[in-house]
Amino acid sequence: MAAEIESAVMTAADDGVGFVSTQFVELFAPPHPLVLESGEQFGPVTVAYETYGTLSAKRDNAVFVCHALTGDAHVAGKHSTDDRKPGWWDPLIGPGRALDTTKYFVICANVLGGCQGTTGPMSIDPATGRPYGARFPFITVGDMVAVHHELVRTLGIETLLGVIGGSLGGMQVLDWAARFPNSLRSAICLAAASRLSAQGIAFNAVGRRAVTVDPNFNNGDYYHADGPKKHGEEGPRYGLALARMVAHITYLSELSIERKFGRKLQNSDQFAYQLQQETEFQIESYLHYQGKRFIERFDANSYLYLTRSMDYFDLAAKHGTLQHAFGRTDARFLITSYNTDWLFPSSQSRQIVTSLVQTGRHVTYLELESVFGHDSFLIEIEQLAELLVPFLRETYRRGGG
Amino acid sequence: MAAEIESAVMTAADDGVGFVSTQFVELFAPPHPLVLESGEQFGPVTVAYETYGTLSAKRDNAVFVCHALTGDAHVAGKHSTDDRKPGWWDPLIGPGRALDTTKYFVICANVLGGCQGTTGPMSIDPATGRPYGARFPFITVGDMVAVHHELVRTLGIETLLGVIGGSLGGMQVLDWAARFPNSLRSAICLAAASRLSAQGIAFNAVGRRAVTVDPNFNNGDYYHADGPKKHGEEGPRYGLALARMVAHITYLSELSIERKFGRKLQNSDQFAYQLQQETEFQIESYLHYQGKRFIERFDANSYLYLTRSMDYFDLAAKHGTLQHAFGRTDARFLITSYNTDWLFPSSQSRQIVTSLVQTGRHVTYLELESVFGHDSFLIEIEQLAELLVPFLRETYRRGGG
Repeated sequence: MAAEIESAVMTAADDGVGFVSTQFVELFAPPHPLVLESGEQFGPVTVAYETYGTLSAKRDNAVFVCHALTGDAHVAGKHSTDDRKPGWWDPLIGPGRALDTTKYFVICANVLGGCQGTTGPMSIDPATGRPYGARFPFITVGDMVAVHHELVRTLGIETLLGVIGGSLGGMQVLDWAARFPNSLRSAICLAAASRLSAQGIAFNAVGRRAVTVDPNFNNGDYYHADGPKKHGEEGPRYGLALARMVAHITYLSELSIERKFGRKLQNSDQFAYQLQQETEFQIESYLHYQGKRFIERFDANSYLYLTRSMDYFDLAAKHGTLQHAFGRTDARFLITSYNTDWLFPSSQSRQIVTSLVQTGRHVTYLELESVFGHDSFLIEIEQLAELLVPFLRETYRRGGG
Repeated sequence: MAAEIESAVMTAADDGVGFVSTQFVELFAPPHPLVLESGEQFGPVTVAYETYGTLSAKRDNAVFVCHALTGDAHVAGKHSTDDRKPGWWDPLIGPGRALDTTKYFVICANVLGGCQGTTGPMSIDPATGRPYGARFPFITVGDMVAVHHELVRTLGIETLLGVIGGSLGGMQVLDWAARFPNSLRSAICLAAASRLSAQGIAFNAVGRRAVTVDPNFNNGDYYHADGPKKHGEEGPRYGLALARMVAHITYLSELSIERKFGRKLQNSDQFAYQLQQETEFQIESYLHYQGKRFIERFDANSYLYLTRSMDYFDLAAKHGTLQHAFGRTDARFLITSYNTDWLFPSSQSRQIVTSLVQTGRHVTYLELESVFGHDSFLIEIEQLAELLVPFLRETYRRGGG
């Protein structure tokens, strides 16, 4: 195993999957709309997705990646030479990497309700010719999973080798195993929970409130008359940036903020004694920067819909008990949490694991050590690879692959 | 001791200090302005304060209470029969209570920069006849302490039996011991730190940003032309409420939110599947309520100035080291932290205690157990009383009282 890890790390500096393109497919066109968990019917849904590697002849090597709140389908590689950075989980995916694209066919899709290509509030409503805005239907984690699952079927895949995701992505993984129990052979759930805590709902409520009280929110109808502009050029810019600032604090650990910024000042060794300096401390400057960057790439309405879907997520409530939720799948589970993650603490992962054990499922759980708080699942690639490589290999082997 | 505690608890249901009035005094009038830590000169300063009990003939029984960020001088009793609630620390103060007003003379004053009677940004600038607003000078925790100390001198008290406070109040206690080392015989610092953490600065930055991006902030000049109106009737209402919502989350523990609210809905057993319902979960309704209540009693400019003073607070930086800061006082120290307080975690109190021990000071430290997070210092009165009663009695005895 050590040799494999070493190889994964060594090739991480290489080109990975290289250049990739986002693809689009229309699903749930009339007369077959998506039936949402609210009971409402909705369609058509355009799905933006990317794939890496090659689907095997037996169609038994596909791994689906579920992205987190503000992620997208572009999980690895670059779209063009102009890209400053590769996809959001690039170190994990590529030839010789943990999700080895010489072995596995990796799929990632932007979630329903998102703003990176899949139908969401900023998409044009065919009925009106204008963006949905607040007329977009209420969606749940289960609805996102239903769209993902339909995409996978459309790609000709009956059973996935694995579904993997962290945070909101991890919630999708759990929901997938409960909702489509025979469609996956492994479920890898990182830094997540079977339901959002009251504290998590509280922070989401603050973020949404920041957006909705911004005068430029205009009840969600802030898009340009000719259709949505580039992100960040219209709408509740200040509110969305503020929402990102507060959320960003919850993604970091106290230790990592203290180590990285501490009380260091941004441009001076001495206090300015000026209230108007809003970014005197480095941590302030960093948060303001994160807010600014975020509004360039994200839609405020999507932020409202997706955070609300997290609030609603409660697998036990939906299925009666967690045991019922997990009782119908033979998937092998790999659960990880991170010791400094206070947004999705280890106690929540242990609850999932306990229920899986009680249901007689195959489950492996580790609390990984990292200073990076909730963001660890995006950063601590080596520790994750060390588990993921043999776990997927064994899942594949047991499937007769 | 047990009998004393019992007595304190039993009388807590009684009238306490009864009816009280806020008093006002003008300090730092020309030609003796306050020299602020920024170097700027400022005055006059009106101070709003209350006292409970009677100053002894020897003037050796006075205890000064430093309030936290959004507190005020009204720490105990009621102003009139119309008051729904007594002062903010009422269960701690009164005949037979821990700060026993039959023995001690208790003083509390609204801080410099506040909005409850002491000169702050909403006060009228005598030079212009209009509220200071953003022209109010930059203030520090040390400046607040300088005003408190001058008030105490004005009341004819050379040496306080004790100075007590939690959170920002605890910072004042530490600063007091460093700045006026011979003016106090004991220092009681609850749920505080010798400097604000990067995470604390981060949350304050978010709260200030919520205020400053509110269009009604108007660079701090939002007061009515005829002078400030009642709190909450003008200015950045939405921004200040939002700041309070996020701050309020940091004052509670995850456990207490989970126990009190969990995922319970406010008005239904079933999800509404309506994004427009901003207070569907009880925790959301609670936070919105806290925001609304707060703007009725607090000024947004004061919020900016006071949170910034917390950010700046760094006793070691100011004095070279914590050992230097604490090296000149013979005060007895009592330090407490609370096991579920993640805003001012126990590690920060331990740092204070270590420095005090290294400096050869008298110091007692306990981490108290409470589910209430940072707010514990306001709520866990019995545990505090159990320490405070004998600690103050012994301090008094050692003073030859």
